[in-house]
Amino acid sequence: MRKSSYTQTPTRPFEISKDASVTSVLERMKGISFQGRSLARAFDVWCQALQDECTIFLGLAGAMVPAGMRKIIAYLIQNRMADCLVTTGANLFHDCHETLGFRHYQGSADVDDAELRRLKIDRIYDTFSKDEEFDKTDEYIATFASELERRPYTTREFLYLLGKKLSGLSERGILTSAFEAQVPIYCPAIADSSIGIALAAYLKRDDAGFTFDLISELTEMAHIALNSAGTAVILIGGGTPKNYIQQLQITASLIEPDKELEGHRYAVQFTTDAPHWGGLSGCTFKEGQSWGKISRDARAVNCFCDATIALPLVVSALAERSDKLRRKRFPRFELGREFKIYQ
Amino acid sequence: MRKSSYTQTPTRPFEISKDASVTSVLERMKGISFQGRSLARAFDVWCQALQDECTIFLGLAGAMVPAGMRKIIAYLIQNRMADCLVTTGANLFHDCHETLGFRHYQGSADVDDAELRRLKIDRIYDTFSKDEEFDKTDEYIATFASELERRPYTTREFLYLLGKKLSGLSERGILTSAFEAQVPIYCPAIADSSIGIALAAYLKRDDAGFTFDLISELTEMAHIALNSAGTAVILIGGGTPKNYIQQLQITASLIEPDKELEGHRYAVQFTTDAPHWGGLSGCTFKEGQSWGKISRDARAVNCFCDATIALPLVVSALAERSDKLRRKRFPRFELGREFKIYQ
Amino acid sequence: MRKSSYTQTPTRPFEISKDASVTSVLERMKGISFQGRSLARAFDVWCQALQDECTIFLGLAGAMVPAGMRKIIAYLIQNRMADCLVTTGANLFHDCHETLGFRHYQGSADVDDAELRRLKIDRIYDTFSKDEEFDKTDEYIATFASELERRPYTTREFLYLLGKKLSGLSERGILTSAFEAQVPIYCPAIADSSIGIALAAYLKRDDAGFTFDLISELTEMAHIALNSAGTAVILIGGGTPKNYIQQLQITASLIEPDKELEGHRYAVQFTTDAPHWGGLSGCTFKEGQSWGKISRDARAVNCFCDATIALPLVVSALAERSDKLRRKRFPRFELGREFKIYQ
Amino acid sequence: MRKSSYTQTPTRPFEISKDASVTSVLERMKGISFQGRSLARAFDVWCQALQDECTIFLGLAGAMVPAGMRKIIAYLIQNRMADCLVTTGANLFHDCHETLGFRHYQGSADVDDAELRRLKIDRIYDTFSKDEEFDKTDEYIATFASELERRPYTTREFLYLLGKKLSGLSERGILTSAFEAQVPIYCPAIADSSIGIALAAYLKRDDAGFTFDLISELTEMAHIALNSAGTAVILIGGGTPKNYIQQLQITASLIEPDKELEGHRYAVQFTTDAPHWGGLSGCTFKEGQSWGKISRDARAVNCFCDATIALPLVVSALAERSDKLRRKRFPRFELGREFKIYQ
Repeated sequence: MRKSSYTQTPTRPFEISKDASVTSVLERMKGISFQGRSLARAFDVWCQALQDECTIFLGLAGAMVPAGMRKIIAYLIQNRMADCLVTTGANLFHDCHETLGFRHYQGSADVDDAELRRLKIDRIYDTFSKDEEFDKTDEYIATFASELERRPYTTREFLYLLGKKLSGLSERGILTSAFEAQVPIYCPAIADSSIGIALAAYLKRDDAGFTFDLISELTEMAHIALNSAGTAVILIGGGTPKNYIQQLQITASLIEPDKELEGHRYAVQFTTDAPHWGGLSGCTFKEGQSWGKISRDARAVNCFCDATIALPLVVSALAERSDKLRRKRFPRFELGREFKIYQ
Repeated sequence: MRKSSYTQTPTRPFEISKDASVTSVLERMKGISFQGRSLARAFDVWCQALQDECTIFLGLAGAMVPAGMRKIIAYLIQNRMADCLVTTGANLFHDCHETLGFRHYQGSADVDDAELRRLKIDRIYDTFSKDEEFDKTDEYIATFASELERRPYTTREFLYLLGKKLSGLSERGILTSAFEAQVPIYCPAIADSSIGIALAAYLKRDDAGFTFDLISELTEMAHIALNSAGTAVILIGGGTPKNYIQQLQITASLIEPDKELEGHRYAVQFTTDAPHWGGLSGCTFKEGQSWGKISRDARAVNCFCDATIALPLVVSALAERSDKLRRKRFPRFELGREFKIYQ
Repeated sequence: MRKSSYTQTPTRPFEISKDASVTSVLERMKGISFQGRSLARAFDVWCQALQDECTIFLGLAGAMVPAGMRKIIAYLIQNRMADCLVTTGANLFHDCHETLGFRHYQGSADVDDAELRRLKIDRIYDTFSKDEEFDKTDEYIATFASELERRPYTTREFLYLLGKKLSGLSERGILTSAFEAQVPIYCPAIADSSIGIALAAYLKRDDAGFTFDLISELTEMAHIALNSAGTAVILIGGGTPKNYIQQLQITASLIEPDKELEGHRYAVQFTTDAPHWGGLSGCTFKEGQSWGKISRDARAVNCFCDATIALPLVVSALAERSDKLRRKRFPRFELGREFKIYQ
Repeated sequence: MRKSSYTQTPTRPFEISKDASVTSVLERMKGISFQGRSLARAFDVWCQALQDECTIFLGLAGAMVPAGMRKIIAYLIQNRMADCLVTTGANLFHDCHETLGFRHYQGSADVDDAELRRLKIDRIYDTFSKDEEFDKTDEYIATFASELERRPYTTREFLYLLGKKLSGLSERGILTSAFEAQVPIYCPAIADSSIGIALAAYLKRDDAGFTFDLISELTEMAHIALNSAGTAVILIGGGTPKNYIQQLQITASLIEPDKELEGHRYAVQFTTDAPHWGGLSGCTFKEGQSWGKISRDARAVNCFCDATIALPLVVSALAERSDKLRRKRFPRFELGREFKIYQ
């Protein structure tokens, strides 16, 4: 390559301006460097995915709901800036908790945890909760589950039914929005959370017919990819949501070996992990390309930033620009016991 | 507190010595600071757990098997320096892969991933694998599963049977060692891995009777804690293994509310995550105390270090000291379809 | 403490709203958790420092000028949202470079560095520069220095004179703004940068009378603290700027042992380092309190975030709110060979 | 490249063995992945540098002396496993402190810092010190400096004379070993430390003839590189020591433009910082190659690991193998007011 090709675009030092709307700030951040530029590009790639014909998978790990990100995720679902959510049981438990009217509390990480234990206050970094309120959410979930038919459920169906039940209440959150917008939620590690604990502790032994059918839902989700013109992935943190969305492409290619799958076409990740530890949570999209999870010419951005900073900014900017981002096509789902996709 | 109580123990600058056995080095590291001291204390606490009467839960996340940690975990199981393993599907898939005679390869992170894709080589940071060999392991697992009775399985039973099948081969790994030592392995997010992919892709639709019973196994594992004089936890990385072992105490206390559970008595964590991102993977044992997951007076050490450095050192040291670490009592399990514990 | 005192303030999940001005977004982020809350509080504490009577020290480490932060720092100086800058030689070299009309270029971290070497392009993560342009800035600085009287200079005086010379040009940056606003800049490790290289390479041996008087400037800067009603510290990154501003309080207390110094009253840090490595760059303000560097009841926030994200946001918000932040009093300096402070 | 070239070398899962000497463990770690492999390779590259004809620069940042690394650095100097040290003023102050017989204390990071302040105990993460003892070291250094001739000193000469004075005492540390082995120490940011504070606070105003000549020492150090057949760099942390050693090659090439300098031939870094923040402390040697700081075909290893873990291990292994590592040639220095190099 010639020298000039490397030095075509000067950086544009960020200029402080009277216009401090989030989109205007992100627009100016495109010209700077390091993670500031990554954040601006992440917004850009998300916008591009919305304007292309593709299905957007959203992965959500970390204690994002206790941290106050619940209504942001609900907004993304209601406004179809994401078409399918994969998350942890914890985030859904805490979403249910807040929809039931319980709260998380602003606390501090510099505190006497033995005293918190005595007072039955649970800590998540700088955020507190009350044990007794968790117990009530546990019971709510167990009661809900005990009223279900005894048969295997995908987590997608189980969570849809839970969202349906919660939607009778006035408060709106992730589960209720997903129910209303008919957006599927998958939770591959559902037992590894207070939802699992609630089911284990309160379900009677003779309820044994109730199980999760994890393998069927892998196939189900692979069909979403197989029925899409293209796919995009937005990852908040790593963990099972990231891996599950990434492995989708591999499952799909094994299910329909004749179909040429290109890997995700747009890919955005907000993470605080680093690639050099070798784990999946910190791995780059470049690594994902070797597996075929990510398209060879994907527009991909790894933004190293706490999601509690990135999400409020980027989603506020998406909202600010929402008029221009009206999607031409996005997948429509029917989420009963049977799962149907309409493009 | 008086001033002198804070300044009782001077640091002991590390002295280079002719005796460079790992135990001797770790012994001298106890007197230094920062993560060097943490590593030495981690070794210490693990030794204490082995000498006390308690059940040791080992959590294993991250791509530890591709990274060459497989025989270390097998050693810990064979020598009962761990009594119960919770890990990811990926680690078990890769264990199966190597036991079948396939390999991982020493690569580099600074490489052209598009070319790797073309050559069907998959990259995990600085480690490579061949797609075509993965396909064979996929098939092995699918064939194994297709021969099973059509009914719900705990992952513990499923993995026990897989270990049994593999133990007919000459190579020894995690699954085969766990089968032989009757050490239970739990994998709460089993579908989120190549094991899940293999089952989804190769199991015929009419095989639908085959499911995982995730809720029963939560109860099963809680009974291990309820039947122990005390518990210890060794965490390699975070993710579902960490959360699952931590939530154990809460499940157990809900199942038997009258039994006073103290939380884990010994706790060691090797992690590269940080507490200030608020996620479970990086959270400290102090935070765990607020939830009752960790005993108020637990001996707990968070060591911030890549496990591929910490494990070879600490387990080599455990081996060096193994004569002095003969355990008086540890739980014995019977791992068929039914699960039995003998203390 | 009673339970209710821990659970007084519920978190307020972030609500996406039509008003997406940066201040409005940061205002709503105060009610969330993790580093999102820290960022909002950092903005808050900076506002409080501006409204109190105190001298604001700004520490700037990392390749912030190549990354496009130069005009933000210039804005802070011009608008006296900072009263004294401590930074690295590199940042000032690159500021001089851009003021001379040279550029940095938007590049990528995923590139062939051997080829860059061949083309004489220098890389800073995802940012490129041209060797030949650096040579010209080297020469400019060497020529400037060769025209100075042969005597010891504080870095403050040296940089003031460099800013004066640059202010003849049309472009405005950090050095020119500091000259015009009479804001002192200290650079304790000036030799460790291209400024040092330029002086070493181009100054003739017989120019040997030219030296930096680093000890006098420590005393000079301590007098800024001693003459202030209170002090605040804003730290962008760690390194020598952080340590130098922190040690100020200790120097001052040794110079005037009778004067009761309280430590910094307001303290904000944007960092990507972590406390558990034990280094000064990652240490918390809590640790600083043990040394008396930070006041016992300081309003202090450690925000773990890349400064290229934090600075555009927080300084845009300061600008948006600047009408309300008119300072009643701030120190005025005379920055010739002699250094004078007027409150 | 052909597929086989990527998959030539299988990983070798780490085998627990009776032989747990540090060299044997590191030898086996070469076959694994992630930072475990990096640590093993770091040891390897250091050995290669010792066996080649080259000058080894050692950079030392972070609170390594309070953390107990002092005798390790002294060992490296005494045994000429490093030929020139660049470090921070803090490390040298604390070295002086311990050589004077004062101590650091094993503390904890989870402590009430306001109480520590009241008790005049200073905290460095998990390590404590007594204010009153620091005062005595301050005085020692000030007295030492006040007895020096009033003229400019390179930090190299100043530290040599301090080492000489300390060498009258019985305790051995970094400064005394460097004096005895005639190994030069450079400290480009000496004012930014308690050494600077001591000089500022205790030196009388009429002592004004005493200054540091930072520019001459840049030239002096560049001549070490210019007089070497080759150079190697071992970096413990980042900060000014890393930058200063890296910029050496650039200074040297400007001083003698006709001499073809290749950049450092061997390069090892132990760091806990990450490349994606764009700072110099976390940057890779690959980035350094674009600048010509590092040779195009250097053997270079970035090992992401706390140095309090890496140093005890790697230097114990160097000691274990020291018989085989006898260097054929290394530079000899004369360190008086004038600086001489003999190869």
